[in-house]
Amino acid sequence: MNISKRGKEIQESPIRKLKPYADKAIAAGVRVYFINIGQPDIVTPQPVWDAFENCQDKVLSYGPAQGFLDLRQAIADYFTGYNIDLNSENVLISVGGSEAIQFAFNVVSDPGDEIIIPEPFYTNYNGYESSTNVKIVPLTLNVADGFRLPPAEEIEAKISDKTKAILLCSPNNPTGTVYTAEELDRIVNLAKKYDLFLIADEVYKEFVYDGATHKSILEYDDIHDRAIVVDSISKRFSCCGARIGALITRNPEVYQAALKFAQARLCPPTMEQRAALAAYRMGKGYFESVRKEYQKRRDVLCEELKDIPGIIMHKPQGAFYIIVRLPIKDSEHFVRWMLTDFRLDNETSMVAPAQGFYSSSGRGTNEVRIAYVLKEEDLKRAITVLKAGIQEYNRLF
Amino acid sequence: MNISKRGKEIQESPIRKLKPYADKAIAAGVRVYFINIGQPDIVTPQPVWDAFENCQDKVLSYGPAQGFLDLRQAIADYFTGYNIDLNSENVLISVGGSEAIQFAFNVVSDPGDEIIIPEPFYTNYNGYESSTNVKIVPLTLNVADGFRLPPAEEIEAKISDKTKAILLCSPNNPTGTVYTAEELDRIVNLAKKYDLFLIADEVYKEFVYDGATHKSILEYDDIHDRAIVVDSISKRFSCCGARIGALITRNPEVYQAALKFAQARLCPPTMEQRAALAAYRMGKGYFESVRKEYQKRRDVLCEELKDIPGIIMHKPQGAFYIIVRLPIKDSEHFVRWMLTDFRLDNETSMVAPAQGFYSSSGRGTNEVRIAYVLKEEDLKRAITVLKAGIQEYNRLF
Repeated sequence: MNISKRGKEIQESPIRKLKPYADKAIAAGVRVYFINIGQPDIVTPQPVWDAFENCQDKVLSYGPAQGFLDLRQAIADYFTGYNIDLNSENVLISVGGSEAIQFAFNVVSDPGDEIIIPEPFYTNYNGYESSTNVKIVPLTLNVADGFRLPPAEEIEAKISDKTKAILLCSPNNPTGTVYTAEELDRIVNLAKKYDLFLIADEVYKEFVYDGATHKSILEYDDIHDRAIVVDSISKRFSCCGARIGALITRNPEVYQAALKFAQARLCPPTMEQRAALAAYRMGKGYFESVRKEYQKRRDVLCEELKDIPGIIMHKPQGAFYIIVRLPIKDSEHFVRWMLTDFRLDNETSMVAPAQGFYSSSGRGTNEVRIAYVLKEEDLKRAITVLKAGIQEYNRLF
Repeated sequence: MNISKRGKEIQESPIRKLKPYADKAIAAGVRVYFINIGQPDIVTPQPVWDAFENCQDKVLSYGPAQGFLDLRQAIADYFTGYNIDLNSENVLISVGGSEAIQFAFNVVSDPGDEIIIPEPFYTNYNGYESSTNVKIVPLTLNVADGFRLPPAEEIEAKISDKTKAILLCSPNNPTGTVYTAEELDRIVNLAKKYDLFLIADEVYKEFVYDGATHKSILEYDDIHDRAIVVDSISKRFSCCGARIGALITRNPEVYQAALKFAQARLCPPTMEQRAALAAYRMGKGYFESVRKEYQKRRDVLCEELKDIPGIIMHKPQGAFYIIVRLPIKDSEHFVRWMLTDFRLDNETSMVAPAQGFYSSSGRGTNEVRIAYVLKEEDLKRAITVLKAGIQEYNRLF
């Protein structure tokens, strides 16, 4: 009686597995700056809390498997506000973006099929690889050029007869890169040429800086059947704990198949859908101040980081992450050491080792991901502590 | 560019797929009695609503992947109240019982492995078969003997070298059968003899009638490593829309593997975990009145059903379902006809065709599942309407 191969092989979350060391530091009275995980400190908007408080139901009932119609309509309207024509029947509410990605993997591929994803990528894709039994084929990008996509030929070299889809995440977690229209064109053309689905994780859509805007794959009129967008309110409305996401597709066959997977798990949480609806009803004005806040944090972060000797980095254009190369050999060892041994005035900082964001082994060992999810003052202090840590680490090891 | 085989083959929910016909009837002004789905009308307890209202958080944050410690402890304590010794590290909070079952399937089996399940079974297991790529091997039970388990030899005949687990659901959805201690012993012995995991869906634990009690597989001291229990607050506290369940195991390897699948989807909904904690803190006294209510409904239902000519049924011992054989040939056709054509004083009743609860094709075509989730008066009327419908149907077809 053994557990399964997939149960043995699925990765432990590289972000969460170091958490016990942080907990131990906190228990010992140390202040830990968490810039390792995408949990924003932005206050969840009041209409969300009001929705929880004002519920008039008597029975906390199941909802429809695809989510409530009013929420699906609100999300469709939201996209229409970006000149993307959608209706409620293109939107399927999921339990977080996480579930939408697993639905997408299950619908486009069978066990053993391949999905191409530029790496470094959101580490939980590795988990979905195990839970859906697909094979992720990584397309390795480079910190030195700001993680831009390679020429079409290099991407084509990754396509096999088992390839079912290309997955893009833009604005990107963990790199902060926002793909240009030209880069998107390149991928869209390949999807058409090789008859592939194109899955886009666009949960950081609003988080683009310096006046730029995000281009969605839903804006391409000639790939309505191929385009599957994964969405979430987690970052958009600082509602990570709500677990409300969406799978968006104009391909009815994809929608119906995803719906069947959705039916098996009954429905997304009822109360949170009401809360999400309240959030969408705030309108787009809400994002202005949030975007400004993150842009400021990004600028502060880059300013603080750039004088670390030997650092390699590019200013990210979106999301709230950056991957930087540091003058260290083993970032996982470094992160653990920061938590167990290093203190500056009884404080330490926690970043995420970048290895877990790569599928190719040996990659990212001298890189870390930093999430700029703290307010300016805390972020500055977190980086000061980090810099002192790097210096001390290099003296010792 | 085609969707996947699993996306094509996963079953459409046989319960939910007929819903559009009901919606149409309602839109035409017809009253529909829903006794097809396990959505109780029992009011969700006030402490649950209070927990939503009294949240003092500023940010709706991620929680731990395994769920909040206080809730895990409360669930462990709850089982201790049934003389089952558990601690918080045996409990992993899931997004509904649905997710716990998928975690269990993923942890005990790889694609192509087999899990034996007595049929008729909870129809969504068929969906999890597709989403986790396991093969369900049905062990067909019979309405005529009240869906009792067959002798050990018949069960052994289903075991192959690909069998990884046996799944039991008791009290059973959809049959209402509660397995006896002797039946459980039989399965436990087989699990030991053939070195299998034993997965038990015990979400209806409190719903046993006539003074009987439910025996959990967690009460067997010699299968601590094999026993995986799937639990949920959906029916227990009339919180179907909360999507809070749990996977319970004393096998640390199983727990750790399930935790990795859990990490990939980040966490269960934060607010609902608080609500669930409030529900558990009510104590066991809460269930007394609920149990009495369901027992009364069961008695009413059985009394009303028993004089249908040609019906075959056994009085269920638990849960709030019954599968009955009716003098009809195609129960799906019958259910659809009831929604589209049959009216008694502008009312109709919706039951669930039983085919979807069987994995073996051709089974259950003359059976339906009835959920006694309506209050006595409505339930009586629902059955009166159903009986008139059966009579008319048999006159016409």
